[in-house]
Amino acid sequence: MNKTRRPRGRGRPAQPAVTRDTIAAAALELTLESGYDKLTMSALARHVGVAPSALYNHIANKAELLVLLQDAVMGLVDTEPLLRATRGEISVADALRAWARSYRDVFAEHTPLVQVIATLPVAGAPRTQEMYDAVAAALFHAGVPAHQVMPRVVAMESFIYGSAFDTHAPAHIFEVPAEGSQELPELRRATEAFKPGAAGAAGSNPYAEEPFTVGLDLLLADL
Amino acid sequence: MNKTRRPRGRGRPAQPAVTRDTIAAAALELTLESGYDKLTMSALARHVGVAPSALYNHIANKAELLVLLQDAVMGLVDTEPLLRATRGEISVADALRAWARSYRDVFAEHTPLVQVIATLPVAGAPRTQEMYDAVAAALFHAGVPAHQVMPRVVAMESFIYGSAFDTHAPAHIFEVPAEGSQELPELRRATEAFKPGAAGAAGSNPYAEEPFTVGLDLLLADL
Repeated sequence: MNKTRRPRGRGRPAQPAVTRDTIAAAALELTLESGYDKLTMSALARHVGVAPSALYNHIANKAELLVLLQDAVMGLVDTEPLLRATRGEISVADALRAWARSYRDVFAEHTPLVQVIATLPVAGAPRTQEMYDAVAAALFHAGVPAHQVMPRVVAMESFIYGSAFDTHAPAHIFEVPAEGSQELPELRRATEAFKPGAAGAAGSNPYAEEPFTVGLDLLLADL
Repeated sequence: MNKTRRPRGRGRPAQPAVTRDTIAAAALELTLESGYDKLTMSALARHVGVAPSALYNHIANKAELLVLLQDAVMGLVDTEPLLRATRGEISVADALRAWARSYRDVFAEHTPLVQVIATLPVAGAPRTQEMYDAVAAALFHAGVPAHQVMPRVVAMESFIYGSAFDTHAPAHIFEVPAEGSQELPELRRATEAFKPGAAGAAGSNPYAEEPFTVGLDLLLADL
């Protein structure tokens, strides 16, 4: 839309109000609709319905947009259980279990962002920083030695990111044709005993539940 | 290159010999050079130096190409420790540790493939199937109940895939500016105590080693 042709004067502002929050929300929406590859400053401006210059008043470049997007996604993760654990209201293991599940579910809906956010610094992303502060606080509260806190956070995150992909795996991923399976006796035996969990969110792989629970239990067993 | 203009007749064949193995190797090479998004049948044909029809003599479509690519990548993972554990030569925990490290290192070099392969069925990929058979055999050998074998395999894989991303994270990923860090005491305390591991492969994040070791130890603690 050509700004210069728009009549000026009284009435409402010609363009929607743009804030960093509306930019973040629009970037998240656009990524969900069209994938991360389609997220450019000009596509985002079109999606918001403003000229690109209106975005550049709030964010300097694509890198800053990514940080904003990271913070919008991380802001969806439920950190309340962590705060409750640090107040002594629930166990730290239960809190981490609830946090990890919420974190996985958020990224299951945003798998194209996993690779980006897994390697994006937290600088400039206040909600992301607060989440890490809350996870660290919970681990300290459980008595984890300081030098082990971040390694445990990162180990859990790695597990969570991979588990987010697994929610999209087809249920028959490990199936081998009967004619070949004589040579794969262990895989066949293991696959036959692999049971789906309770139905999760719509469209999610029911075989993703048990590995997620088993992995989390192992990662939290000593807390 | 236009086949019809190529002189026919005596001498060597005009086109390089094409087999499923050479197609797989070329697809892997092309993905490493140009990224997964650039992997199309026509780009692959150009890379091999043949007409697209020469590829279609061996593989039916892009889906089959993916299975071939999956098998080429999975074939790089070292399964020898698993076979040794099943023969009783080394402990199952040590074997799974070595396998997991090899698996992570292979995917650290092919991170764009993680999302694809994490959700790709193993049907049609013999080396991939053999790997899963070997992992399952090792877990059975360690006395893991049948219904827990695949959940444990998938849990380890999720952790491995996420850990592959972490090898590309910048060392300062958790650093927060000094002026903001008063409000993030737990994150600051945890980050200060987070020490890099021994230097890994060139270009890899030294802070990825400790989380990988810690996570693996927890995932294998009960074996």
